Order: sequence, then structure tokens, then C-alpha cells
Amino acid sequence: MGQIIKGKPVADAITEQLAKDVEELKGKGITPKLTIMRIGENPSDLSYERGALKRYAKVGIDTEVKAYPENISQEEFIEEIKKVNEDNKTHGILIFRPLPKQMDEDIIKHVISPEKDMDCFSPINVAKLMSGDKTGFPPCTPTAVIEILKHYNVDMKGKNAVVIGRSMVVGKPVSMLLLDENATVTICHSRTKNMAEIASKADILVVGVGKAKMVTKDYVGKDAVVIDVGINVDEEGKLCGDVDTEDCLERASLITPVPAGVGSVTTSILGKHVIKACKAQNNL
Amino acid sequence: MGQIIKGKPVADAITEQLAKDVEELKGKGITPKLTIMRIGENPSDLSYERGALKRYAKVGIDTEVKAYPENISQEEFIEEIKKVNEDNKTHGILIFRPLPKQMDEDIIKHVISPEKDMDCFSPINVAKLMSGDKTGFPPCTPTAVIEILKHYNVDMKGKNAVVIGRSMVVGKPVSMLLLDENATVTICHSRTKNMAEIASKADILVVGVGKAKMVTKDYVGKDAVVIDVGINVDEEGKLCGDVDTEDCLERASLITPVPAGVGSVTTSILGKHVIKACKAQNNL
Repeated sequence: MGQIIKGKPVADAITEQLAKDVEELKGKGITPKLTIMRIGENPSDLSYERGALKRYAKVGIDTEVKAYPENISQEEFIEEIKKVNEDNKTHGILIFRPLPKQMDEDIIKHVISPEKDMDCFSPINVAKLMSGDKTGFPPCTPTAVIEILKHYNVDMKGKNAVVIGRSMVVGKPVSMLLLDENATVTICHSRTKNMAEIASKADILVVGVGKAKMVTKDYVGKDAVVIDVGINVDEEGKLCGDVDTEDCLERASLITPVPAGVGSVTTSILGKHVIKACKAQNNL
Repeated sequence: MGQIIKGKPVADAITEQLAKDVEELKGKGITPKLTIMRIGENPSDLSYERGALKRYAKVGIDTEVKAYPENISQEEFIEEIKKVNEDNKTHGILIFRPLPKQMDEDIIKHVISPEKDMDCFSPINVAKLMSGDKTGFPPCTPTAVIEILKHYNVDMKGKNAVVIGRSMVVGKPVSMLLLDENATVTICHSRTKNMAEIASKADILVVGVGKAKMVTKDYVGKDAVVIDVGINVDEEGKLCGDVDTEDCLERASLITPVPAGVGSVTTSILGKHVIKACKAQNNL
């Protein structure tokens, strides 16, 4: 019988370190600051924002929220990003995506300063992620996956990791990060044949496809570690992941729940990125 | 007993199409042009250059070689790249790498115009490659792998592709391109355990690690297609790939030789990129 591994202890450990880092920076007269740029009032953005504000208030990271109306024009928004790029007090920028339809993300992504881009929006950070360049900022959710594995002492080196999903939000980035940790990585997706069989060979199974409870115990090898990155709503209207947790617990050794799993770690990772950016921008 | 599949028929088919494309462009008063920027006199650069010049002369792509002394300074070279970026007659630029040690590739790569960057030097093209954005220019060698598979009617969709090597020159880019073709992709590397066993499950095996004849028949499943991207020199001083071709022929269905395999297709791919860049720059 496997064990449920929650995100909170991971987030707490990271937060504890963040508080120390902030204290050290403040001792040097520097206050790390994140600026969140939000368009409209998407409930999941607002929920993320509340979590972030609360966590960063606790550790001493300054957080400013710049909220814009749903109908802001692309030109105006670009001007706003440029202002924040140039604001010396801001070390990190988070822009909630997807952007409303009057915006072309393929244009906006080139505007945000790569040094301040905290969630791998800029192509410069995408390129660094792919080439394994540690000076960049990989997206927070895939990074949270790696931090959870590290926190629970899951050895990745030489292990078979299977990733289900090939999106730029989860699948491809987490594959690159697993490769950096020296795992052997298999990327599966909607066109994969015999997916359950392939997945069941994994030591580490990461799932991010957005299909409620798609992964059942047939997908899970004995003592596999299962990380569930999906967030869905089941037939009863409750939050659930891409993994049928109860069903898989029978075979897995460790498994993250949804909610209270990967999602609870992302704001801590964002905080960690802000500290890293702040240090880099101050040549520390 | 498997069959050796050479690069030449693939290159010839692409070249034939290139000649038609050039004719069409010339009919519109446009001559596609590649500028090759070479520092020093590396024999493999010179050999590649000769092959390119010969092929493009045949199809009507203008090719200019700008050769610089081995000791050119980084600043001077950057100025030279900027000039070619701005030259309206040049649609594609190839810069031979690695650059000499007085150059920082992490600086230079940001200078070349992404629209003219023919071999995925610019991080903008790396990001496009990772995100599956077809407007970019993936590196020529991994693209040659895909073109060979297509030419020989190897179905990639839903097939198990195993890539040995995780470099930015071969392994990672070819993995992304195989994903674009809907293969299920496993990336192996020096830390992979049981590599032969994993490789032997592949329908398509792509090898790019730079170890002479490392891949023997234990790595090859029955009727697998094997693409050898390695170029090495064996004990007798002869060119050879990463695959022990003769040994593997017993089990493989198709296998590319070295020399006369993948390497013979790259200049055609480069030509194809030049045509694509020329069309894009002329809004065609």
C-alpha cells in the first residue's frame, strides 16, 4: 500500500529557506519584489494570487499586484510590461496566462524581460530550459514536480521516468528537467500506443494531460512514484487530478494527491525564482 | 537481413524540389541567398562548405562565403554578423560552430537574426523547436533524420522512438521533432541503465553520441529502423558511426550507413531552410 505525499511539507521547507534568504538580502539593504500582472478577474488567477500574497508576506518578499481590465489593448499592456521591466525595484514578473483574445502571446512573450520572467514565458527562458542552462527560470509547475521528488528523497539518476503529456505547460518542460536530473525520460501523449504498458515500466510517472482520473492502476508499476499534475473537476463537481489516486495507491509507493499536491508547491517555487532573480540582478 | 538506406536519394529528392522552388522565386525576380560565415580553416567546415557550394550552384541558390581569420575578435565578428543580418540580399546565414575560444557563444547566439538563422543557433529558434512552432528553423542534422525517415516511408505516428544522446546538437532536437511526428519518444544517455534493453524495444532508434560502433545488435529490436548520426574514426582510421552497422543489419529492417547516411542530407536541409527563409522574408 502506497503513501500519499502532500505538497505542503515541500512548500514549507522551501518557504523556510526563502525567509532566511530574504533576511540576508534585507541585511544588504535589498528587498526582493515580485510584480504580478493580471488581466481580468479569472477565479483561478485570483486564488493563486491570494496564496502568493499570503506566502510572500510571511517571508518578506514584496508583492505588488497590477490588475488590468479585461479589455485592455495589446499596445497598452505592452507599455505596462515595459514599465515593469524597467522598474528597478521589481526583480520578478508574473503575467497570468492565457491572455485575453485581443492579445497575441507570440508578441507579448518577447516583451517581458527574460531576467525578470518568472514562469518561462520568454523564449529566452524556454531555450535555456531546453539546453539545460541553469541561469534561466523554468516554469513553476514542472519545477515543483522536481522539488517534490527531491524533498521525498526520490532518486532520479538513471531511473526510468515516464511523462504523460507533451504540453509546454507540463510535459515538455518536466521532461527536460528530469533529463537534467539524469533520469531516462519517455514522453507519451494522445497518439501513444499501449500507454498503460509503457507507463507501468516507469520508476517515476508524471502525469499532466487534463483528463480526470485517466491514470488507473494498470498504468502503475509496483512501487512506482506517481506525480499528478492534473487539475480537473470530477462528475460530482469535486477537484481531482489526472490520476485515480485511490486505485493507484495499491501499486504505487508514493503518490501526490489533487488537491494538496503539486499545486501547493508552485507559489514557493515562484518565490524561489524571485530570490534567484533578485540575487542575479544585484550580482550576488 | 536489413537494408542499408543511403542519404543520397533523400538529398537528391530534396534538391530536385529546391531547383523548382528557386525557379519559381527567380520568376518573381528573387534569388535566394545563403551567406556562410566561417572562422579559420577547419577541414570539416571546408568540406561541408564545398558540398554546399556545389549543391547550391546546381539549384541556383546564391552562396557567399565570408571567411575570417582564426584570431578575429568577438567585437569584430559581432559587427560582421550585424552587417549580414541587415543585408537584404541574404536570406539565410550559417555560422560554423564551435567558434574559436575568444568568442562567447552565449553572446553571439543573440546577435544572429532569428529569421536568417539556418541552424538553430538563436535561442528564438531553440524555443520554437521546443514548442513545436513550425515557423522556426530546427537544426539541419536532426531535421535530416526526420526527412530520411519520411523519404523511406517509415511511419512515426504512435511508434516507439528511442534516442540515444541528449545533446543540443542531436539528441534533444531530434526528440522534439519526433514528438512533432507523434512518435512516443524515450531519451537515453550516459546515465541510462539497461540501455540495450530499452533501445531494443524501439521501432525507431536514433543514435547521436559520438562513440564509435557503440550500438551493437543487442540494442536493436527485430525489424527496427536505425538512424546513425555519429561520425567517428575507428581504430583503422576509417570513418564510422555510433552504430556497428554490419552487426546490427542482422536484426534491423533499415539502417543508415556512415559515411553516406545522415551527413549527406544536411546540406539539402540547409538549402530547404534558405528557401523557406527567402519566402518568409518576401511574404510568400
